[in-house]
Amino acid sequence: MNSIKNLHIKFNEALSLVEFSNRPIELYEPITYILKLGGKRARPVCTLAACEMFGGSFNDSINQAIAIEIFHNFTLVHDDIMDNAPLRRGSVTVHEKWNSNLAILGGDAMMILAYQYLQKIPKELAGQTLQYMLANFNRTAIKVCEGQQMDMNFESTESVSLDDYLAMIKRKTAVLLGEALRVGAMMAGAQEEDQHLIYDFGKDFGIAFQIQDDILDLYGDPEKFGKACGGDILAGKKSYLYIKALEKANTQTQEKLKETYYSTSLSDADKISSVKAIFDELNIKSLAKAEMNRYYLSAGVALNSIDVEESKKETLKGFAQSLMVREI
Amino acid sequence: MNSIKNLHIKFNEALSLVEFSNRPIELYEPITYILKLGGKRARPVCTLAACEMFGGSFNDSINQAIAIEIFHNFTLVHDDIMDNAPLRRGSVTVHEKWNSNLAILGGDAMMILAYQYLQKIPKELAGQTLQYMLANFNRTAIKVCEGQQMDMNFESTESVSLDDYLAMIKRKTAVLLGEALRVGAMMAGAQEEDQHLIYDFGKDFGIAFQIQDDILDLYGDPEKFGKACGGDILAGKKSYLYIKALEKANTQTQEKLKETYYSTSLSDADKISSVKAIFDELNIKSLAKAEMNRYYLSAGVALNSIDVEESKKETLKGFAQSLMVREI
Repeated sequence: MNSIKNLHIKFNEALSLVEFSNRPIELYEPITYILKLGGKRARPVCTLAACEMFGGSFNDSINQAIAIEIFHNFTLVHDDIMDNAPLRRGSVTVHEKWNSNLAILGGDAMMILAYQYLQKIPKELAGQTLQYMLANFNRTAIKVCEGQQMDMNFESTESVSLDDYLAMIKRKTAVLLGEALRVGAMMAGAQEEDQHLIYDFGKDFGIAFQIQDDILDLYGDPEKFGKACGGDILAGKKSYLYIKALEKANTQTQEKLKETYYSTSLSDADKISSVKAIFDELNIKSLAKAEMNRYYLSAGVALNSIDVEESKKETLKGFAQSLMVREI
Repeated sequence: MNSIKNLHIKFNEALSLVEFSNRPIELYEPITYILKLGGKRARPVCTLAACEMFGGSFNDSINQAIAIEIFHNFTLVHDDIMDNAPLRRGSVTVHEKWNSNLAILGGDAMMILAYQYLQKIPKELAGQTLQYMLANFNRTAIKVCEGQQMDMNFESTESVSLDDYLAMIKRKTAVLLGEALRVGAMMAGAQEEDQHLIYDFGKDFGIAFQIQDDILDLYGDPEKFGKACGGDILAGKKSYLYIKALEKANTQTQEKLKETYYSTSLSDADKISSVKAIFDELNIKSLAKAEMNRYYLSAGVALNSIDVEESKKETLKGFAQSLMVREI
């Protein structure tokens, strides 16, 4: 079995060998560009690790790992247009480097290329599993679109509930991680029940990871996580912390929090410290950590329940642990 | 066997019964809107007709017909953003009615829904044909993106060759018609050779139809075709007529044609009549008709070669004939 680091390296090698058509060049250039920007490659590495955990080899699921990564990058290209984002992974976004039209069409082509790689399965196996794999993948893919829509809706929604927020992050990011793992498991011929379990592991871990992301945005060490503290507050993002605080606060504190969060007169530093003071008063950091831990534990329960030797679960378990930050 | 008219009615009925999720409503409303705008439904009707021609029933390919129509409408929604089009089928386009973000995301979801319907195949049949069907469909879908890119490129390309133009219309519109027919044939269990032939029939007919469209734009009876004469000239579109004329003309006439076509001082009526005079001098209408007929005949040869009783081909043959205009 390969380590996560090995899988990452081998995945990048395999992806760099993928040759798309180059006519018309305007269509394919942005695709090559975004795929070369790198990133954590967490999803395809999960596909490959899940496949190996169930006894498959690297080659058994490399095409599906590529499919998952291309699909993920398609969502980034289109989301960046919608969010008007100038940067992605520290580089210029596709719609900024070229234009929105090329980003729309390049994204479209990437989604099709994802399906093209997804169905690259040995014929015998395709007969048994392709339809089921597609049905699952499609259900997940449509949820990713729903999640992006919900996220956009939140910007103009006065009161977002925690349930709404969890439903959004589940769709927008967690389900694709679950699907990445499930596809890998399927390619190794895992039993149906184990496929569900590994999907649940990824989905719950994905939710925990997103909550952690919201916590780190304010409470993380900026030197370690590369982001300035409080970016979500300055962007007026309805984060887990903000929604939880509104839920816990009495009417008076609610008003004060909203006013501070969306104040246009406060300095950045004052806004962050005032909001943080309210969060601290309401014990939001601990409450968020507790919720994160609930999902993290639930992910662990799913992984533990899988009918595979414990030693084979170490790679994925270690990967999950490495992504969770102890110091918060 | 159903007539084309019957298939059209029954398809619309089936499509109207499709229920998408309605949460978040912002994602699904534009999808329902564009699918209800109607249109010729030529592609799904071709899927259903091809399936019946090879002995299948309406129900054998209705899911795939829906898939093809949803995919086609996805391309319309995204193309309309890129082309900045205000109207589609006489109604407001999705990005105008809502906004570009909803049109991008709604289109994305439609592409996934198309794949969802495409794979709705009885399990026995899926084992044999789904992978092959997907590989074909993906190849066609990516060509549609390439065609749209080429079309956009032409706007800023000084000299477009006839080969380039034919390669563009083949990708942008003809291949999806071929694929619609092939998918229907596959669902009826047609032999592989016949699947190729019916694809070729659709592809060549699609090219003939597009050339006819360019001819009618200038030479068609506006009362019959609902368009004012010369719209392509006024839009500066590099149509078959314009490209063919540049190919035939000597250097002097080439210059005159370019000047007239992109003149900003001529009145609309003067521009159209001057361009038409050059086209007439070069005999462009006849040359375009000859090219159109070559593709139309080639489509007929493909249909004739299919190993099916001639009587069963009548529906599709009649449909193709009805779409070609005798009077030009």
